[in-house]
Amino acid sequence: MGIIENLQKIIDGKPLIHHITNWVTIYDCANVVRATGGLPVMAHAPEEVEQMTSISGALVLNIGTLTVSLVKSMILAGKKANEKNIPVVLDVVGAGATDLRTDKANEILNKVSVSILKGNSSEIGTIAGVKAETRGVEAISVTGDPIEIAKKLALEKNLTVVITGKEDIISNGKDVYICKNGHPMMGCFVGSGCMASSVIGTFAAVEKDYAIASANALSLFGIAGELAAKTAKGPASYKTNLVDEIFNINESKIRKMTRLEKIV
Amino acid sequence: MGIIENLQKIIDGKPLIHHITNWVTIYDCANVVRATGGLPVMAHAPEEVEQMTSISGALVLNIGTLTVSLVKSMILAGKKANEKNIPVVLDVVGAGATDLRTDKANEILNKVSVSILKGNSSEIGTIAGVKAETRGVEAISVTGDPIEIAKKLALEKNLTVVITGKEDIISNGKDVYICKNGHPMMGCFVGSGCMASSVIGTFAAVEKDYAIASANALSLFGIAGELAAKTAKGPASYKTNLVDEIFNINESKIRKMTRLEKIV
Amino acid sequence: MGIIENLQKIIDGKPLIHHITNWVTIYDCANVVRATGGLPVMAHAPEEVEQMTSISGALVLNIGTLTVSLVKSMILAGKKANEKNIPVVLDVVGAGATDLRTDKANEILNKVSVSILKGNSSEIGTIAGVKAETRGVEAISVTGDPIEIAKKLALEKNLTVVITGKEDIISNGKDVYICKNGHPMMGCFVGSGCMASSVIGTFAAVEKDYAIASANALSLFGIAGELAAKTAKGPASYKTNLVDEIFNINESKIRKMTRLEKIV
Repeated sequence: MGIIENLQKIIDGKPLIHHITNWVTIYDCANVVRATGGLPVMAHAPEEVEQMTSISGALVLNIGTLTVSLVKSMILAGKKANEKNIPVVLDVVGAGATDLRTDKANEILNKVSVSILKGNSSEIGTIAGVKAETRGVEAISVTGDPIEIAKKLALEKNLTVVITGKEDIISNGKDVYICKNGHPMMGCFVGSGCMASSVIGTFAAVEKDYAIASANALSLFGIAGELAAKTAKGPASYKTNLVDEIFNINESKIRKMTRLEKIV
Repeated sequence: MGIIENLQKIIDGKPLIHHITNWVTIYDCANVVRATGGLPVMAHAPEEVEQMTSISGALVLNIGTLTVSLVKSMILAGKKANEKNIPVVLDVVGAGATDLRTDKANEILNKVSVSILKGNSSEIGTIAGVKAETRGVEAISVTGDPIEIAKKLALEKNLTVVITGKEDIISNGKDVYICKNGHPMMGCFVGSGCMASSVIGTFAAVEKDYAIASANALSLFGIAGELAAKTAKGPASYKTNLVDEIFNINESKIRKMTRLEKIV
Repeated sequence: MGIIENLQKIIDGKPLIHHITNWVTIYDCANVVRATGGLPVMAHAPEEVEQMTSISGALVLNIGTLTVSLVKSMILAGKKANEKNIPVVLDVVGAGATDLRTDKANEILNKVSVSILKGNSSEIGTIAGVKAETRGVEAISVTGDPIEIAKKLALEKNLTVVITGKEDIISNGKDVYICKNGHPMMGCFVGSGCMASSVIGTFAAVEKDYAIASANALSLFGIAGELAAKTAKGPASYKTNLVDEIFNINESKIRKMTRLEKIV
């Protein structure tokens, strides 16, 4: 499925991954891009976001600690990315928990042509308009089959939908990939979802089939997550291991461990 | 003193702990809540703070990198918390170091009914109106007996006062608890004070006697801090261990290690 | 070259190091100051920055996630530092990548008497007005000899220039120091450049020859970076080790490992 080739392209090309993200996991988002092989840059001033996006390989938007003015910068950057054919990843952190998050996520989707829309089941359910409960940034419940929700929303919005969870679901409306890599410890520290979006952005910078880019990224991230668990003593040492394992990933680990399925 | 019971309530109920906090330790505050068993959420936009507080089990306010507009969001959220009977923790980071910090801490205390007021000796001394020196966010000196300061301030403001230090002092004006758990390494990295406030908020979400909630939280945090020291090689590995030990805490460790005294 | 003496002065005097910095590495900047022996404080509200600077031993400005209003706070704080004879370190993160960064870096240099100007080769090249390319916050290329650029810029601006890289170059226009300490892993995680600036600020608080202060800081940081590599398993454990090693540094390690040259 091209993980090895795409990872090599990242390492060789060092794509710049422009983030407009939240203040909680901003460091981990940057650091995981660096560990993967890309160059992260975080810039949110409205005066510079368009120029920074213009020199980037992908734009990652994350509404984890959104404000009205930050979303304005996201839209500016997103429109520039569209103009330049640069992929845009949108992580709708907390959509459904407050009206602001739901409304701003939808506003971004209306004004920017997003390439990859990513969230947990209740966040994506909220955007899809189904009954869902998000507690803060945590999925509590969603009505309906997540695979069907992803497929339908992808078709409707003309983008790739990624629903993270025990198994990650990726769909561009036609293809559906299920990524089974990962480890329960990934839910025990703060930031794995945001980091996953940053890795997705890094792969989207080198792979124009965004469903494959997302599947690649989530497999890589999940494999590292499985390896990280071997010597972790708790969630903090687990996160340290996770970043180390991403940095140390290689062809043989990817070949042996990838658990990615394409379903019809 | 109910630590074990309250910890179990946190793990079972996963209370949402809404923070409006600083940009330095925001990750560690979130992560320590997750390690304890709660769900952290960080949200500061004035348009959403009331709604986010409404679905939360506790609100943690921290003025470590305050701005005038951030304090407005804190007051909005705090008033909503009061309306909904949700506990409010206020960590007056740096009170005394600048007029802005002292003034805004007092403004929050005047406009919001704070449940637990927390700081180091000079920060709390500043709020109590005694002579005190804070260098940046570090206690340098305070005039008078911290226990008496805590008791008097608690009575005057009708809240629980927590003074952290070598021994932590907790008073609701009537009861005084001294928590002797902890380790000198907790002062060697940045963020232990902020993290302690977040753990206090997590316990306050399940224990309505806020002096007990604070004492529980500081004991748990201090026990983990003692265990963390065993294999730490310096302040960074110490912090990693600390979070891991909070995640791994159990009934037997709590029973064996708690050093909490109620004094009259 | 006084590293040991200056480190002892830091440990004894615990200088307060006021930062107005970026939201990505703000924690690591604070934590590395603490590990070195200083007291970090991060404060950016325009209402308090002058007062916070007034009680500090050094001011560290970093434009990594600049906004127009944040730069206003930097200038306010910088002018107060000048008035009080407090050293000012400016890290021009990303200068050259966008016009905003280049313009604001120059605006700060025009309005504030900066003591130490620090960046990678392309960032400093941009400020020096030579042809240079910065991709995000990464040096891609620069035209000319970095040592000559540093010397000339230092003379022209009447300050100390620090160019970080495989070998760090420090010049006050007259003296040139080359610091050869360091390790390739320092480029594999996010934040080593920002952390270096914070350590430079910490040394500048106790050593008024700013070229020597910078050389001291970079040697110490580089020595810790070499030691950190011994047991690191990847970039995240490497950063943990780095902070631990700074905390654990001692006279014997400094004597044995310092690789600092003064060239004419």
